[in-house]
Amino acid sequence: MSVVSDRYCDGINPNLVDLAEDHLYHLGLSTGTTDFKLVFGDVKFVCTAGSPNRIRKLAQYLAQQSGTSTELRNLAEKGGRFVLFKVGPVLCADHGMGTPSLSILLHELFKLIRYAGCKDVTFFRLGTSGGIGVNPGTIIVTSESLNTELKPIYELRILGKLVARPTTSDPDLARELVKITNEANICNAILGKTVCANDFYEEQARLDGAFCSITAEDKFAYLRLAYEKGVRNFEMECTCFTSLCRLAGVRAAVVCVTLVNRLLSDQVRISQEEYAHFQELPGLVFAEYLKRHNTLASGPAH
Amino acid sequence: MSVVSDRYCDGINPNLVDLAEDHLYHLGLSTGTTDFKLVFGDVKFVCTAGSPNRIRKLAQYLAQQSGTSTELRNLAEKGGRFVLFKVGPVLCADHGMGTPSLSILLHELFKLIRYAGCKDVTFFRLGTSGGIGVNPGTIIVTSESLNTELKPIYELRILGKLVARPTTSDPDLARELVKITNEANICNAILGKTVCANDFYEEQARLDGAFCSITAEDKFAYLRLAYEKGVRNFEMECTCFTSLCRLAGVRAAVVCVTLVNRLLSDQVRISQEEYAHFQELPGLVFAEYLKRHNTLASGPAH
Repeated sequence: MSVVSDRYCDGINPNLVDLAEDHLYHLGLSTGTTDFKLVFGDVKFVCTAGSPNRIRKLAQYLAQQSGTSTELRNLAEKGGRFVLFKVGPVLCADHGMGTPSLSILLHELFKLIRYAGCKDVTFFRLGTSGGIGVNPGTIIVTSESLNTELKPIYELRILGKLVARPTTSDPDLARELVKITNEANICNAILGKTVCANDFYEEQARLDGAFCSITAEDKFAYLRLAYEKGVRNFEMECTCFTSLCRLAGVRAAVVCVTLVNRLLSDQVRISQEEYAHFQELPGLVFAEYLKRHNTLASGPAH
Repeated sequence: MSVVSDRYCDGINPNLVDLAEDHLYHLGLSTGTTDFKLVFGDVKFVCTAGSPNRIRKLAQYLAQQSGTSTELRNLAEKGGRFVLFKVGPVLCADHGMGTPSLSILLHELFKLIRYAGCKDVTFFRLGTSGGIGVNPGTIIVTSESLNTELKPIYELRILGKLVARPTTSDPDLARELVKITNEANICNAILGKTVCANDFYEEQARLDGAFCSITAEDKFAYLRLAYEKGVRNFEMECTCFTSLCRLAGVRAAVVCVTLVNRLLSDQVRISQEEYAHFQELPGLVFAEYLKRHNTLASGPAH
């Protein structure tokens, strides 16, 4: 664990106290023009996903289940980068693809919930992923987030120097999500380690990118090694998500559906109908979690 | 230079020959259902930018300037991730934020132009950036793309092992873009080195993220060192863009406007009107380039 993560594990950046106004640039929200305590003070759950369309549909579904208006306003519209919807105590945002885009969203959401004075917030990432040795349509709840070296760290460079942050997340929350998915018969769900890659093709050992410098033997040796270490899926955000949530002092869970079994194919070959169904599954798990925590009908949508 | 980049500097992945059908998953386009040669065969310029709204407006502007319909269809709608518009020989696409998202787009666009049989294609990235020692509203055309260690490489991990690819791009094209921007009085334009960071806050030495582990002295020492080495702006894509374009054998240029002078402020503090104007400038440079190459009115929009 690096000095950086030790020093700021409570998520406090002392410089923010001195800012007269903080403009959350990519969210298009400013402490000077929005009363964060009034608008966001009751937030308890933050739900993120890669695709803006998927997160919009999920927010509408949650609003419908809460009996509130499904005419939701994108609160981050001015920023022109992300969508942000609020349904009672639930914030829903898209994070784009990859850790750089996600890290921007997380920095700004962590500042938002701090300025709003939110307490006991839990963050979820709902995603799609490539499975390793599991059938398409399986939910993997991440037990540990690994980088492509199969180490449980998130690396970034600060002042050009490498900093490695641990990716530990909440084991009880992960187990609970697997349990309720299976109990509610949403689909098959398992715990598994998840690898975060910085690319869809070459970093995930696919053979079908524009470039490929490895053989099929290299690929299968790498995927089998990952499988033996407990990896069940690859995606592009989990190490950043769990390590930054840990630094910010919020609970975090990563819930992904698999769209392909990489031991059989690199390409996603499911039908349009299966694709539409599978990508809704993580949202159904999240909604079931909210129901069991008596959250779905507890506040008006803004 | 690594074995990987040596081996594939002509951009040929031999595995693609064996694929009966290639589904470009994130573009939602398949060689089995779209005739790439018919739809994309005449493409000569590919223009990318981070924001879908900005790229949509640029495509509409180009269509208007060409005298063709501004009712453009998003050709990548089925993928649900990117927008993709075609205006005569110009393809316009958004790449999201950061190198992982960009690398997905590039892999799929490189395969697209290969299947379409396009020849002599030039790729542009138009973006916003944080300036170092230059006034907001300046166009920086990238002379060299550096990572945050200030090295001219793009790093990725293949099979978990680090691969460093050179980021060399086309110096004549960069000089031409600076020249025409100044000649056409679009705004002040200069050549400069550009740093690609994997994060907006900590990797760019900002003090105003949710976390900050450095002092103001650390920040200014780092930014001044970068300035002395010729760096004039920071963004989040250039190393990946230039190195993958180089591997694919296409010319590449990175044209960014600065929204802030990081030696004076971390936060973007320009007015809404300035912001709206500044972010259009790279598109005006690109349009001017097309005009001078007799491209703006040379084909119907699809």
